[in-house]
Amino acid sequence: MKLIKNNIGRLVPTEVNGETQVPFKGVDKYKPNGVKAKPPIHSCMEYPKDWNKVIKDLKTALRKAGLKDGMTISTHHHLRNGDLVTNILFDTIKEMGVENIRWFPSASFPVHSHLIKYLEDGTIHHIEGSMNGPLGKFTSEGKMKGVGVLRSHGGRYQSIQDGEVHIDIAVIAAPTADPFGNSTGDRGKSACGLIGFALADSEYADKVIVVTDSLVPFPCVPWQIQGNNVDYVVEVDSLGDPKKIVSGTTEVTKSPDRLLIAEYIADFIEAAGIMKNGFSLQAGAGGTNLAFLLFLKEKMKSKNVKARFMRGGSTKYLVELLEEGLTDYILDGQTFDLDGVRSMRENANHVNTSPFTSYNFHGKGNFASMVDVAVLGATEVDVNFNANVVTHSDGYLLHGIGGWQNCLYSKCSILAIPSFRDRIPVIVDEVTTLCGPGELIDVIITERGIAINPLRKDLLKAVNDSPLPIRDIKQIKKEVDEICSGAPVKPKVNKNKVVAIIKWVDGTVLDSVFQVEK
Amino acid sequence: MKLIKNNIGRLVPTEVNGETQVPFKGVDKYKPNGVKAKPPIHSCMEYPKDWNKVIKDLKTALRKAGLKDGMTISTHHHLRNGDLVTNILFDTIKEMGVENIRWFPSASFPVHSHLIKYLEDGTIHHIEGSMNGPLGKFTSEGKMKGVGVLRSHGGRYQSIQDGEVHIDIAVIAAPTADPFGNSTGDRGKSACGLIGFALADSEYADKVIVVTDSLVPFPCVPWQIQGNNVDYVVEVDSLGDPKKIVSGTTEVTKSPDRLLIAEYIADFIEAAGIMKNGFSLQAGAGGTNLAFLLFLKEKMKSKNVKARFMRGGSTKYLVELLEEGLTDYILDGQTFDLDGVRSMRENANHVNTSPFTSYNFHGKGNFASMVDVAVLGATEVDVNFNANVVTHSDGYLLHGIGGWQNCLYSKCSILAIPSFRDRIPVIVDEVTTLCGPGELIDVIITERGIAINPLRKDLLKAVNDSPLPIRDIKQIKKEVDEICSGAPVKPKVNKNKVVAIIKWVDGTVLDSVFQVEK
Repeated sequence: MKLIKNNIGRLVPTEVNGETQVPFKGVDKYKPNGVKAKPPIHSCMEYPKDWNKVIKDLKTALRKAGLKDGMTISTHHHLRNGDLVTNILFDTIKEMGVENIRWFPSASFPVHSHLIKYLEDGTIHHIEGSMNGPLGKFTSEGKMKGVGVLRSHGGRYQSIQDGEVHIDIAVIAAPTADPFGNSTGDRGKSACGLIGFALADSEYADKVIVVTDSLVPFPCVPWQIQGNNVDYVVEVDSLGDPKKIVSGTTEVTKSPDRLLIAEYIADFIEAAGIMKNGFSLQAGAGGTNLAFLLFLKEKMKSKNVKARFMRGGSTKYLVELLEEGLTDYILDGQTFDLDGVRSMRENANHVNTSPFTSYNFHGKGNFASMVDVAVLGATEVDVNFNANVVTHSDGYLLHGIGGWQNCLYSKCSILAIPSFRDRIPVIVDEVTTLCGPGELIDVIITERGIAINPLRKDLLKAVNDSPLPIRDIKQIKKEVDEICSGAPVKPKVNKNKVVAIIKWVDGTVLDSVFQVEK
Repeated sequence: MKLIKNNIGRLVPTEVNGETQVPFKGVDKYKPNGVKAKPPIHSCMEYPKDWNKVIKDLKTALRKAGLKDGMTISTHHHLRNGDLVTNILFDTIKEMGVENIRWFPSASFPVHSHLIKYLEDGTIHHIEGSMNGPLGKFTSEGKMKGVGVLRSHGGRYQSIQDGEVHIDIAVIAAPTADPFGNSTGDRGKSACGLIGFALADSEYADKVIVVTDSLVPFPCVPWQIQGNNVDYVVEVDSLGDPKKIVSGTTEVTKSPDRLLIAEYIADFIEAAGIMKNGFSLQAGAGGTNLAFLLFLKEKMKSKNVKARFMRGGSTKYLVELLEEGLTDYILDGQTFDLDGVRSMRENANHVNTSPFTSYNFHGKGNFASMVDVAVLGATEVDVNFNANVVTHSDGYLLHGIGGWQNCLYSKCSILAIPSFRDRIPVIVDEVTTLCGPGELIDVIITERGIAINPLRKDLLKAVNDSPLPIRDIKQIKKEVDEICSGAPVKPKVNKNKVVAIIKWVDGTVLDSVFQVEK
């Protein structure tokens, strides 16, 4: 495998799984010049006259869809750790004796450790999508046959739209569907809110199979996935474990350090002048972010400030902001708890979005770029504000990119991180894996202070007179290194063996993940 | 121009406006084998960093969009006879000195007679879309430079999707929009309900210009047109005349003959066993159809029958069915009055649809084919149930096809027609222009009786014991010819001069419209 240094100095392969790659050229430096993927033209003639596309089981649907060795099969991750469909799908593929599948999920979860045996026996050749937890460990140890490809949610849409990834068969788990194939995630016993991560799959895959445990008469309204793009519908008893699909409740952090970080975020957003009428925000659903939202809410109420929109993942805390009139809209990409699902189903101002509207960099704009402030996490940040979200300092690939890269395009991107985890510093000299170039990362907020990217003179000036602990990132690093008895030990990796690559939002290769040597 | 006889015996050109045509092969006989149109890949890099796409005026937007001679410019017709935008658009194009435009509207209205001067002076080369009223007369007289192309709403989507018509610039009138380009028709001072006829344009045109008279802060919710597909936004004082965009009220017919037809339709639907729980219906918004809906409503109430869905064009009568619980859903393609607009805006079960979901024959199915019964009109029907909706017996092209061809695929298609108009019989030996093959037309309902297509033995049997006046179509024709002193005089046309062609839903050429000789 030939490796070259890309524009930002990272070693990346020029060819991956037999396909030529474009190395990262810099932020906003690579301009695509091709045309979009061109799916075959279908005709109503090919479909049953009674428009009943229900097939007796998944095996029959896969056979009708022409499943064969070497195909690309896609799934979505809205069922999260409660997903049974993907596991049953690969049990079926194995049973059919088909091999060398490229699995193209929008993300994977620990529940998918079930698939390790299929990675070992050659049923699955490699994964393009996040390789969390056990799948990440498997990959990091060099055991996957092909090379993993990690993309952001927007990058996944872009890769399908641009024809970089051709999906042969999309398998879409749908909490409610009709026999025509119209599908929604906002209702049904396995309700997960929305299923927008499967949008591109439904639009561009050769064959689309909807799997549902709640079949309703046409029309299934809303149709988050349009039956006009669906070939087959399969009814099953259960899509998975509802308790692991969405939480009954989401928990705010109780850690004093995390609460301090949460308070700093809210204080910073206020002090920097971002929190004003009509502002917009994206925050995740982790414990720190939920706490931050509660602090911000109090500030908004006391200053009588109303947001124009908030972006989810939604939770009951975000829903409360909407229901109490503190934001006009929630623009939501996934719902994390039952309140999120209910609100999306019942409130027209809680709008479901897709990676196309929110994140696709190869469109005529996207929502993430319009957000005033995005609060994100990271596994590592370096002193030049470059950040990592996929590997830890031990070199292991344990997380996906999600919408993280896409959100860096917000007008102010904040990474909220503890300064160390398990006595390992989070601020480093150089990140193990580069997922986000420092020029797009504006603020680092830790429990030991706030570091502002020197490029953002406007932000530095805005908070100049505030009592906030604004510090140089190198100072914070030095302090933490002392507490932790030094910087993290560099992981032992085999620099000749790339186990996965990190794509940038434009489809170029930003960095490589190398095999960890035990 | 070389003409050949197609599969159904009509003379059609093999080439139109320089493009090779496929003659009609028969119903469900032409299978496409190509790939969809492939728009260029764009990048967020090309768009303003602040995501404000507002351009000071239409002229500047057209210039930025690269307007030049010979381009294809598309518009939608949701503003109906109140549309000012299209007229201003061509005033601007004229002012810019650009010529030979192919105008590709989803339909035209009498208000567009303003454009005749541009057809005369070469600004517009020809129209692909309906040529109603004055534009139809102009075309029929052989005055248009190119040949008109008439398509159904579904055929229009199909032609764009399949790459038969490449739109250079789409101009989308939007009653409400945001600076990113998200647009909706369901609110704003020029509210028209929905703007789904512009969907394909927004997806496939090289450049998309949104014109609005109500600019709101991002996000414009709902986004019937997605800003992610939009290049420029232009704010104007007014899109047109709200009174002509939607009616304040819609009127039920008072004609005794039409009321009788309306009653027969309702009686037939009941007698044929179609009106049962969970059934579905599509009916237009003409006076007869509205009256029929009232008759049907009484029957539904007295028999305690609830429909699963009704398809619009919606009016207050359809909305009442929804609000009184007589149908679960309205699946709507356009709203005709203020009650329709209000209901679509406020009621989640009044769902906006597009020509993609409803009508596209080159998808994996469409809604129109799933409807139990569709009630339609016609200008002429022949004794073999072939029908015409575009020309009258005098040969003049005066109407568009609309969704009519697409609706013929419903499980029972009914043409509700007076047996004569202005003392000219409507049932003829052979239609002037063939728009719908008889094998897809099931029932003709006139004030003189009901004719059932002999192919539909099931329907004949179902109403066998009913008191309905079921008659042979030839008998009705004979009776009417006697009243009107004979069949209509054949129009004098120049069979060497095709002024327009009629496309079938699959893009093949079904028939020609010839120049009328005065």
